[in-house]
Amino acid sequence: MSRVYLDYNATAPLRVEAREAMLAAMDVVGNPSSVHAEGRAAKAIVEKARGQVAALVGCDPQEVIFTSGATEAVAMAAYDSDEIFAAPVEHDCVIANETLPEDSAKVFDVSKDGIVSFTGYAHPSWFCGGNELFFFQRANSETGVLQDVSMPQTARDIGIDGFNVFRDVAQALGKIADLGRIPPREEASIGSSLAVSAHKIGGPKGVGALIAGPGYTPGPFNMLIEGGGQEMGRRSGTENVIGIAGFGAAAEAAARDLEAGVWEKIEKLRNILESAIEARSNDTIFVGKGAERLPNTSCFATPGWKGETQVMQMDLAGFAISAGSACSSGKVKSSRVLRAMGYDEDVAASAIRVSLGPETTEQQVMAFAEAWLKARDKQRARAA
Amino acid sequence: MSRVYLDYNATAPLRVEAREAMLAAMDVVGNPSSVHAEGRAAKAIVEKARGQVAALVGCDPQEVIFTSGATEAVAMAAYDSDEIFAAPVEHDCVIANETLPEDSAKVFDVSKDGIVSFTGYAHPSWFCGGNELFFFQRANSETGVLQDVSMPQTARDIGIDGFNVFRDVAQALGKIADLGRIPPREEASIGSSLAVSAHKIGGPKGVGALIAGPGYTPGPFNMLIEGGGQEMGRRSGTENVIGIAGFGAAAEAAARDLEAGVWEKIEKLRNILESAIEARSNDTIFVGKGAERLPNTSCFATPGWKGETQVMQMDLAGFAISAGSACSSGKVKSSRVLRAMGYDEDVAASAIRVSLGPETTEQQVMAFAEAWLKARDKQRARAA
Repeated sequence: MSRVYLDYNATAPLRVEAREAMLAAMDVVGNPSSVHAEGRAAKAIVEKARGQVAALVGCDPQEVIFTSGATEAVAMAAYDSDEIFAAPVEHDCVIANETLPEDSAKVFDVSKDGIVSFTGYAHPSWFCGGNELFFFQRANSETGVLQDVSMPQTARDIGIDGFNVFRDVAQALGKIADLGRIPPREEASIGSSLAVSAHKIGGPKGVGALIAGPGYTPGPFNMLIEGGGQEMGRRSGTENVIGIAGFGAAAEAAARDLEAGVWEKIEKLRNILESAIEARSNDTIFVGKGAERLPNTSCFATPGWKGETQVMQMDLAGFAISAGSACSSGKVKSSRVLRAMGYDEDVAASAIRVSLGPETTEQQVMAFAEAWLKARDKQRARAA
Repeated sequence: MSRVYLDYNATAPLRVEAREAMLAAMDVVGNPSSVHAEGRAAKAIVEKARGQVAALVGCDPQEVIFTSGATEAVAMAAYDSDEIFAAPVEHDCVIANETLPEDSAKVFDVSKDGIVSFTGYAHPSWFCGGNELFFFQRANSETGVLQDVSMPQTARDIGIDGFNVFRDVAQALGKIADLGRIPPREEASIGSSLAVSAHKIGGPKGVGALIAGPGYTPGPFNMLIEGGGQEMGRRSGTENVIGIAGFGAAAEAAARDLEAGVWEKIEKLRNILESAIEARSNDTIFVGKGAERLPNTSCFATPGWKGETQVMQMDLAGFAISAGSACSSGKVKSSRVLRAMGYDEDVAASAIRVSLGPETTEQQVMAFAEAWLKARDKQRARAA
């Protein structure tokens, strides 16, 4: 049997539309900044993709600033913000940021289902210094848990009118329609900015965008990468024309899939998987199942059976899944996200993530469930 | 007649080897950070390319940190340096940097041929604060002028032992063998770091690398883009696997060309071009001709005839050339580089750059010379 890829949240296979757009872009020799015919042709590719990405996000094309990925977009937002705040369930690219104060996590409460809210520790004085920035992912990459979009109400609850929010929607883009973009208001001038990534929607790796809110300029966040003034003076460096072409085509295809209800079918497969596992492994915990989740993601922990061991056993059996986020250069440790949700070390270390995509079939899902349950039986026998 | 592309310094056509490597990489689905078979296959692509780039540069593969281009590599070097210094002939990505002090230029003298040296203004006290960084491009993108590699001697002349130098070799890589890497010494721990770019050597746009000297760690320069810890903890964000594959293949092909003497043939074509122009336009100034130059670059100014006009006329006639650097989003103004070399506004505004590459033929060069001289005659007639 050929390999079964069930790790779409780590990266999705390149869509055929993206491949074709990239092939076409390879024949265009020019630099988009050059004024001659070859340069204009390259620029046209970038601008076409900008429109395609904007259409998927639901924003103005002028708001799209192409970057080398969502991680760079997050770095741009964090750069030169006076202070950033983020709950401990955020992605490494937020958590690792040097401008994140150590006590940032105190500001947030994380429920067992992964829902983030402000704690009593958060007080109005924190929100009037000037240039604070709050990161709120739309969907968690490990658990698929969706964060509520009604943050402004929450803010009012603690006595402030608004604040600056940057949303990491890398994992949500293309999988759900509502990206939770907070409508821009005067008192939250960058409240509507987003980070997106091409390779999570079937575009190439190493391309993404910062979706800049109407109030976004290179300050209040200064420009991270300066130089030739590409991307309307907001991000310098010769554009990744081939990659951007692939991003645009993938965005168009992803929008079509979303419209066609492809992710509702994927959700059914995910539920079939969880039911199959649940029926025969009754001590397995489905993380975040009580919350709204991405339709394709299942994170489940089987205490006493290390996630990394499961990943290796499934790999040998022909299935690609993951333990935690892929963006960690193969490091093996218990899930920070699960620990933040209140799970103990044993549970957090025994979690795996199975994430499906448009090419996933019911046959593949059932084959995985069978293989996993077989391994589970063996593990149970060994442990007994 | 089909179009003739003579703007290799802006960007080179994608090499066939790069295209093939990128196509192969498109079939590999994994994220290089994933531990399963698909992830390991993606990682192998990145590591193969790392070796290919290292072989062209002449460095250890571990010194190669892949980035979204040379501009990002420069930003990484500048980030968190206490102060950077650069002569006004440097690339926009150096000059635009916010950490460049306004009087930085005072430290340098630029000769009429574009050669940079320290001025009397430079004094030892500038070099002992801690974390100063000097940028010295190897080859100027507009003029092709090569900077002397004997900087340490110059430094000793002004009474210091050494300093930290970062070399922008984006334009030199693949065109000349000696990248002017300054041997690492204890007192110049990052003296051997370089910025390189894929698309100048026939790889894709939007990929490059910082070649980190032995003393390089995320400090003394802090990490510009933080997160998952890719690139051995020195640059985060999921790798541009397809682009990196193309970079590697282009580097291998470029190394072969260099070895085979391809650039000596290109130099002959460049000289044929200059002789043809010189013979019939005796007021045309060949910029930097008195200095060592890249073999493929000709920058010439014809006072009274605007460079941008020449670029447009040649574009209509079927030739892609440029006025100044391409990395300026189509902005039209006189060359900053030429003004720094002591040319007046009239000369600086009338310069064009013709840059050749491995695919350039003598027929193309002569066709360009004829077309340019024909336009020159018309311009002379109009001006008379």
